[in-house]
Amino acid sequence: MKTGLDFLLAAKRCEIDGLQRLAFTATLVDVTARLVHGLQRERGLTNLYLGSQGRSFAEARAAQVAASRQVEAEWRAQFERVDAGTAQAGHGARLFSRIAYVLQGLDGLDALRAQLDDRAWDTARATEAYVHLVAALLAVVFEAADSASDPEVSRRLVALFNFMQGKEFAGQERAAGAALFAQGQADAAGQQRLLHLIESQERCLELFESFAPTSARALWTAPHTSAPLAELERLRRVLYTATHGAALKPELSQTWFDVCSARMDAMKLVEDRLTADLRALCGEKIAHAQAELATYGALAAQPAPDPLSFYLAPADASAAAPPVGAQGFGLPLDRSVLELVHDQARRLQAMADELEAVRASLNERRIVERAKGLLMAHRQLSEPEAHKTLRQMAMNQNRRLVDVAEALLSMAEVLPPR
Amino acid sequence: MKTGLDFLLAAKRCEIDGLQRLAFTATLVDVTARLVHGLQRERGLTNLYLGSQGRSFAEARAAQVAASRQVEAEWRAQFERVDAGTAQAGHGARLFSRIAYVLQGLDGLDALRAQLDDRAWDTARATEAYVHLVAALLAVVFEAADSASDPEVSRRLVALFNFMQGKEFAGQERAAGAALFAQGQADAAGQQRLLHLIESQERCLELFESFAPTSARALWTAPHTSAPLAELERLRRVLYTATHGAALKPELSQTWFDVCSARMDAMKLVEDRLTADLRALCGEKIAHAQAELATYGALAAQPAPDPLSFYLAPADASAAAPPVGAQGFGLPLDRSVLELVHDQARRLQAMADELEAVRASLNERRIVERAKGLLMAHRQLSEPEAHKTLRQMAMNQNRRLVDVAEALLSMAEVLPPR
Repeated sequence: MKTGLDFLLAAKRCEIDGLQRLAFTATLVDVTARLVHGLQRERGLTNLYLGSQGRSFAEARAAQVAASRQVEAEWRAQFERVDAGTAQAGHGARLFSRIAYVLQGLDGLDALRAQLDDRAWDTARATEAYVHLVAALLAVVFEAADSASDPEVSRRLVALFNFMQGKEFAGQERAAGAALFAQGQADAAGQQRLLHLIESQERCLELFESFAPTSARALWTAPHTSAPLAELERLRRVLYTATHGAALKPELSQTWFDVCSARMDAMKLVEDRLTADLRALCGEKIAHAQAELATYGALAAQPAPDPLSFYLAPADASAAAPPVGAQGFGLPLDRSVLELVHDQARRLQAMADELEAVRASLNERRIVERAKGLLMAHRQLSEPEAHKTLRQMAMNQNRRLVDVAEALLSMAEVLPPR
Repeated sequence: MKTGLDFLLAAKRCEIDGLQRLAFTATLVDVTARLVHGLQRERGLTNLYLGSQGRSFAEARAAQVAASRQVEAEWRAQFERVDAGTAQAGHGARLFSRIAYVLQGLDGLDALRAQLDDRAWDTARATEAYVHLVAALLAVVFEAADSASDPEVSRRLVALFNFMQGKEFAGQERAAGAALFAQGQADAAGQQRLLHLIESQERCLELFESFAPTSARALWTAPHTSAPLAELERLRRVLYTATHGAALKPELSQTWFDVCSARMDAMKLVEDRLTADLRALCGEKIAHAQAELATYGALAAQPAPDPLSFYLAPADASAAAPPVGAQGFGLPLDRSVLELVHDQARRLQAMADELEAVRASLNERRIVERAKGLLMAHRQLSEPEAHKTLRQMAMNQNRRLVDVAEALLSMAEVLPPR
C-alpha cells in the first residue's frame, strides 16, 4: 500500500521529470534559434542577390544555403528525439502540430531556393516566404515557453521567445530598409512599414528585458553589443525623415544591410547566452531536486508520528516551518512527513501562481492569434493574409498590434455568424 | 526520418493519451466524491451522537464508519494506480502532493474516531476535523479539474468541483444549523455563520449551473431532487429570523438534520450523473480521435503534394477548409497533409483558448488560496487558521470570500516583508 511519503516522493520525482524535459526543451530551443539565424541570413543574402539582378552575392548566398542546410539537419535530428515522453497532453499535441508545420516548410525549402536561384520570385515575395517559415519556427519556441512547469525556467523562455521575435522583426526591418534604399527613393508606405517594425521590435525587447536574467540583460546592453545601434539609428533617421518621393542613396543599401546584420549577429550572442544559462539553470534545479529527493527518502526510516497530528491544530508545526522557497539544500531530519507535505504543497502552489503570472505575458501573442483566427474564419483569409490585414489595420490606425486584435475580438459578437 | 505526417499523427496520439488520462481522472473523481459523501454522513451522525451525549446514534454512526472504511479502501486502491504516467509535470507534482496530504488524514482517521467514540472532542472540534479532511479531498478534485487538457471535459470537471464544494458547504450548514437548534436558542454569531455558508453554497451552485451539461442541470432542478429545498428554506427562515437569544425548538434539530441529509443525498445523485457523463464523454472523444487517427494514417499512401505549397498563398487551401470544429468523423482523403496540419493547429489553438477561459473560473479559488498563503506567511498562521481568518473577515465585512482575498492581495506590497 502506498503511503503519504510515497506520494511526497512521487511529487518530487514528477518535478524532476518536468525539469529534465525542460533541459531537453532548452536544447530544442537552442537549435531552433540557430536555424532561425541561418534562415534570416539566407533571406538577407537572397534579397541582395535578387536586388542585384543575380549579379552579386551568389557565392555568399550559396555558402549560407550550405550552412543553413547543415543546421537544418541538426534541427531535424534533435526533433527526431521528441516523443510523447517529452511532451505533455495538451501542450504536447500543440508542440507536435507546430513541428509538423515546420517540417512542411523545411520540406519545401529546396524547391523555394530553386525558384530564387532562377529569380522567378521578387524580393518582396522571397522575404514573405522566409518570414512564413521563421514564424512557424518561432511558434515552436512559443509552445516550449508556454509549456514550462517551472516559473523561473518559464521566465527565461519567455525572455528568449520575445528576444527571438524581436530579432526577427529586426531581420524584417533589415529587408524593408534595404529595399527602400535600393529603390532609390522614399515612399510613405515603406516608411510606415519600417516604423511599425521598429516599434514591434522595441515592444519585444522591452518584454525581454523585463523577464531576462541579469547576465543576459547586461550582455545586451554591453558596449560591444550595442555598438551597431548608433549607426543604425542614424540610417533609420535618413530613411524616415525623407519626404515621400525624395531621393535615397542606393549605395547606402549595403551599409544599411551590414549595420543591421552586425546588430543581428550581436543579438545571436545574447540568444546563445540565454540558452546556455537556461541549460545550466535546469541542471542546477535537477541536482537540487535530486538532493531533496534523497533527503526525503531517509524519512522512511523515521518512527511514525502521532496519527492524530493531521487533525490537531497544525499551527504549531507550520509556524516553525521556514517560509516558502527559503528552505535550503537538505532538510532537517527531525521534520515529519506531514510537515514536509505541507511545505511541498505550499511551495508547489506558489510555483503554480508564479507560473500563471509569467504565462499571462504570453497572452498578448495569444490575443493576436485569436484575432487572426477570427479574420480567417469570417473573411475566409489564409493565416498570412490575416496577419497582414491585422498589421495593416495597426499601421493605419497607428496602434499596437495587440490593441487592434483586442478591439477586433471585442467586436466579435457583432460579426455575422460563420 | 520523421515527416510532417508523423508529427501530425503524434499530435493526435498525444490528444488520445490526454483523453485516456482524463477517463482515469473521472474514475478518481468518482471514488473521491463517494468518499467525501461517506465522510459527510459520518460527520453528521457523529455530531448527533456527540449532541446526544452518546445516548443515541451510536449504531447508525458505527454502520456509517464501516461504510466509510469500505469506500476508503476503494479510494486507496484507485489512487494506488496513479503513477507518473497519469500525471503531467507541473500538475502531476501538485496532484501527488495533494494525495500525500489526504493520506496523512486517512491514516489518522481511526485515531480520530477513537477520540470521538470516547466523546473526548466536542461537536465543533469534530466538525472541524472532518471539514479539514474533506477539504483535502476536494483539493485533489481541484487539481484534476485544473489539469484537464480538453476544454469540454474541463468544463464538466469545473462543474463537478463546484458542485462538490457546494455540497460540502451544505454539509457544513447542516452541522451549523443542527448545533443552533440543539442549543435551544438563537445566537447572532451562529446565524451569521449559517448565512455565510448558504451564500457560499449558492455561489458554488451558480458556477455549477454555468458549466454543467444540460442533463446534470436538468436533474438538479428536477422536482424529486429539489423537493427537500422547500422544507429547508422554511427551517432556514426559522433559524435566521429568530432574534439573538430567542428560543429555538431543540426537537427541530432532528428535522433539520433529516431535511439537510435528504438534500445532500439528492446532490449525490447529481454528482453520480456528472461523473457517469464525464466517463461517457471521455469514451466518445477517445473513439472519435482514434477514428481520426486511422483516417490520417491512410494519408501516408498519398502522392507527395507540391513541395512549394507551404510558400504559396495558402488562401486557396484554407478557404475550402471547413471551419474549426465543424469537420465530421472521417476526413476526405483528397486533403493534403499541409491542410490537415493547418486545421489541426487551428483546432488545437481554439481548444487551448477555450481551456484558458474555463480555467479562469478556477482562479477565484486560486485567489483565495493565495490570500491564505499570504496570511500564513505574514501572520505565522496555519492553513485552517488562515482560512478561518479570511472567512471571518468576509463575514464581518459582509463581502464574498474572493473579494476579501483580492483586497488582501492588493495590499500585499504594503505589508512588511517576511
